Amino acid sequence: MPSLSPSLDELVDALKRLPGLGPRSASRIAEHLLSEDRTRAVKLLASLERAVKTVKHCELCNTLTDEAVCPICADQTRDRTKICVVESPADQRVIEETMAYRGLYYVLMGLVSPVKGIGAEELHLTKLLERVKNDAAVREVLIATPFTPEGDATAHFIAKAMASVAPAVRVTRLARGIPAGVELEYTDANTIAGAIFGRK
Amino acid sequence: MPSLSPSLDELVDALKRLPGLGPRSASRIAEHLLSEDRTRAVKLLASLERAVKTVKHCELCNTLTDEAVCPICADQTRDRTKICVVESPADQRVIEETMAYRGLYYVLMGLVSPVKGIGAEELHLTKLLERVKNDAAVREVLIATPFTPEGDATAHFIAKAMASVAPAVRVTRLARGIPAGVELEYTDANTIAGAIFGRK
Repeated sequence: MPSLSPSLDELVDALKRLPGLGPRSASRIAEHLLSEDRTRAVKLLASLERAVKTVKHCELCNTLTDEAVCPICADQTRDRTKICVVESPADQRVIEETMAYRGLYYVLMGLVSPVKGIGAEELHLTKLLERVKNDAAVREVLIATPFTPEGDATAHFIAKAMASVAPAVRVTRLARGIPAGVELEYTDANTIAGAIFGRK
Repeated sequence: MPSLSPSLDELVDALKRLPGLGPRSASRIAEHLLSEDRTRAVKLLASLERAVKTVKHCELCNTLTDEAVCPICADQTRDRTKICVVESPADQRVIEETMAYRGLYYVLMGLVSPVKGIGAEELHLTKLLERVKNDAAVREVLIATPFTPEGDATAHFIAKAMASVAPAVRVTRLARGIPAGVELEYTDANTIAGAIFGRK
């Protein structure tokens, strides 16, 4: 079959490389963007263009932000003795929404993953380690990576590195346990075991 | 929480309006596009820009194409006595890939859907009806909409309209039946019933 539209093919190709999109969803999105009403395509184009130009990594915490230093790092009312280490800006957002944490952050933009060939060097840990070493205000590093093999490997690596560069800093991790509002009988054995070991 | 990046928020907002994407997948894609390696973002930007400028609807069959008249409509070796009516360019593509059809197409870019408020007027049926009425070469209209309530409603509407504007043209629909390679016991009752009624 001759290609009806090389431009459409190229767009589908760019879309299907995005995380979570396969060839079918990519072509559905492309057709939607190029159907009669193109306001969504124009809006996406403008916002992507703006974001590529504007969004950068915060010099201090590495999160995605429009400023050189993000609003959280710049906020002098935050508790500067604590740094919470998260995988992504999305994880940072859910922690902020709990209003249970008022310290600072460090955003890894990924996790250690032997399967995907991402070692500790690929994550920007040096910046975090330097900061903890040089900033005497920091008393605690709270590791908030998920309880997955990759999250565990990352947490382990950070804890080890911390112990060598700043042994006085307390390294903690989110509690592992039963989620709120969930019946025990619907909770997996691994989670229940974690909650038993973590009982207090 | 203050927004860490209004540009990122705006991009997530534009992405989550696309079909099949929710807030979580939109923010995952946005973070991916804006992480260190921005080649994918730049590629997506360029291809979307080009597609918005270049892709249009074929004057004859309404499919998405880069030319005024698409390569299939322009191909004089195709069987011009048949028009296959499909929902989308993606459906047109899968039919082409079968190599079982050598006629022309008409692409609706949607289906009649009372739930979504899409009536027959929203689809570009007038163009199809005019064409069938005025082009004496057309002998058959094969309706290839899916066997869903919306696909059935669309097929029913087209068949009725055809009967009034071009009663001599044969209107057919894809056969309904058991898919190839699937055990009967794993096939739903509705499909089996359709195959029984359509037996020959």
